[in-house]
Parts: sequence; structure tokens; C-alpha cells
Amino acid sequence: MTSAPRSRTLPSGKPRPRYDQDSLLAVAAEVFTERGYDGTSMEHLSRASGLSKSSIYHHVEGKEQLLRLALERALDPLLESLDADDVTTGRAVERLHHLVRRDVQILADRLPYVTLLLRVHGNTETERWALDQRRRFDRRVAQLVQEAIDEGDVRSDVDARTTARLMFGVVNSLVEWYRPGRDISPTALAEQIASMVLDGIRT
Amino acid sequence: MTSAPRSRTLPSGKPRPRYDQDSLLAVAAEVFTERGYDGTSMEHLSRASGLSKSSIYHHVEGKEQLLRLALERALDPLLESLDADDVTTGRAVERLHHLVRRDVQILADRLPYVTLLLRVHGNTETERWALDQRRRFDRRVAQLVQEAIDEGDVRSDVDARTTARLMFGVVNSLVEWYRPGRDISPTALAEQIASMVLDGIRT
Repeated sequence: MTSAPRSRTLPSGKPRPRYDQDSLLAVAAEVFTERGYDGTSMEHLSRASGLSKSSIYHHVEGKEQLLRLALERALDPLLESLDADDVTTGRAVERLHHLVRRDVQILADRLPYVTLLLRVHGNTETERWALDQRRRFDRRVAQLVQEAIDEGDVRSDVDARTTARLMFGVVNSLVEWYRPGRDISPTALAEQIASMVLDGIRT
Repeated sequence: MTSAPRSRTLPSGKPRPRYDQDSLLAVAAEVFTERGYDGTSMEHLSRASGLSKSSIYHHVEGKEQLLRLALERALDPLLESLDADDVTTGRAVERLHHLVRRDVQILADRLPYVTLLLRVHGNTETERWALDQRRRFDRRVAQLVQEAIDEGDVRSDVDARTTARLMFGVVNSLVEWYRPGRDISPTALAEQIASMVLDGIRT
């Protein structure tokens, strides 16, 4: 499906951005986060992106595919981070440190997508798939914490699952306030958080 | 305004709960969190509570007053915790420890209200008021962290505002997973989180 030619400027007078799927996904992630997936219509997406509905359908099959693609932008790198070399070899406590540092960077780089991921409920098949992936991620982190407890490096007074949740509570809370460019750099932030979190859980 | 007498059982056959303002606020907090304040109508509140709209108006003036009362259930104890004896006397690092412990307990006790507080955007006067109160709270915590840095007890490589945000990132993340009764007790959780967070930020 092709769309009719459109004006090259927006009503504001700004030049209309040349849309690729990336820019559309970024806008969709923000609208879904703001209105909720159920509360978002194609009309809302059209208004926010400045694209006609038919142009949107040129890029994607529909709303649910947009959601899935946007969630993959968050989930793919997060799940891949679990298999990084420095997260799979060495003492578990060091692997946790690397994992936290990597994931803070992913959050900072993919902020709108991770924010959306942390907001999905589970009303549609795609949302339930995303929640399944999150649970898979959480289980892997809890296993890693358990290994670090077994190796004597992480406090054993808190169970592995709770520790994993609290660690990623700090990481996930970034979506509430962190704005790259305004606050400290993602690299510095990643190192600070990783060292604070690990100091908090070490024996 | 009084309401007409209603059946003493709900359509499910369960006895209709005797509503006071507390139960109505608890239901309202959950509906506002689920649908967003803008997306919630008096009809939704009526269906969720099993009360007629006129019965709801018997308790409160309208939707915005319900929101304000629900948010006060979270904000009042959180702001009061800043003035507790053990949070206002002694070394700043110990005061922080007491504050985190108190606030984890408040979150556990008032979970639906704190969840709502962490979700408000700022589209209405009441939401903007709540965001102002949150900022006031955050500033007080950042001041306390700064005092602890000045006293040499808290690491100075992270600025006070970021440390305060990360500390409360852990605390606030409880709303995502903590369910009193299913998980560990609020008192045990409060002590574990306070000690983990403080170990993470100490020099």
C-alpha cells in the first residue's frame, strides 16, 4: 500500500521528518506508554507521528505489530546481555556486576522502549509474550544471584529472588527520571549503579 | 444527597460490602492505576465498587476529590516520615537508614495508594499538586544524603540527588512485585532493603 504525497512541512512549519520504521517505533512507544496500549488508536498514532494511517500501514501490519516491534527493541538486547562473555564466565558476583552495568546502558540507550516494556499489562497476546520474556530474564538473574550466594560473595540473609528484584528495581527506576543529555552520561551512570548495587549485596 | 436502598448482595451472590470512604478509596486507587485517571469514568468506579453513582456522590464530591483523598493516603505518611524523631536526630546516615525502613513499611501498608502516586502524570490540578509534594519529598531526601556525604559516611563519587533517586528507586520498585501476605513480611523486608541500600551507599 502506498500513501498519497503529503506536504513536506508540518503545521508548525517544521520540516516533516523522513520516516523510517525506527522513528515510527519511537513515536509509537511514547504514545503507548502515555495512553496505554488499549487506549491508543491508529488515529492517535497518526496524529503523534504526522503520518497518515495509510502511511503507517505501509510500515507495519497494525497496532499490535508496532507494539511487538517496540518491545523487541527493549527485550532483544536485555536477553542478549545475559549471554555476553563477561556475564557467562568468571565468579558470579563479577558477572552480576557486568550484567547490571550492561543493562543500565541498554536502558539509557533504549529508554522509550524499556519504559514501555515496564508498563505492559498482559491484555493481548503480545503483552503476555513480553511478560513471559521478562519472567525468563528475572529467573536468569535470580539464578545468577543464587550462584553468587553459593560462592559466598553475596549476602544470604535475603533470598536470591528478592535480591534480584531489588537490584533490578534500582535499574528499572531509571525510566522514571533519567534523561540522557540532561543527566550524567550513560557510561558513568552504569558504573555508579553497578558498584552501588553490588556493594549493597556483597557479603 | 442520599441513595436509594440497594440489594444486600452483589450479582455474584457475594454479600455487598458495607462501604465506608476507606473501601471506596481503595477501589478508586486501583481503578485509577489500572485505567489512568483520565480514562476512568464515574461509571467505571460505580461498576468496580458495586455502588451506584449517587452513593459515590454521597461519599465524595466527585472524581478529582477521590483522587486527592487517595493520593493523601500515600503522601501524608511519607511526608510525616521525614519529621519522625529518628529521622531528624543523629548522624545523617543513620537517619537515612530509619527513613528507608519507615518508607518501605508505608509502601507495604499503603500499596494501592503509593502505586497510584507513582503513576500520576500531571494533567489536572490535583495531579500537579501530588507531583509537587513528591518533589518536596525528593528534595528533603537529597538534603539528607548531602549531609551524610558531608559527614563522610556516604560515598561522594555519586551526587546527592542521584543517590537519593537510586535509593528510592529500590523502595518504589516494590510496587511492581511486592504483595503483602504472599511475600516476606513488611518489617523483614523493610530491614533488608534499608540495610542493602545503606551498604550500597556507605563509604
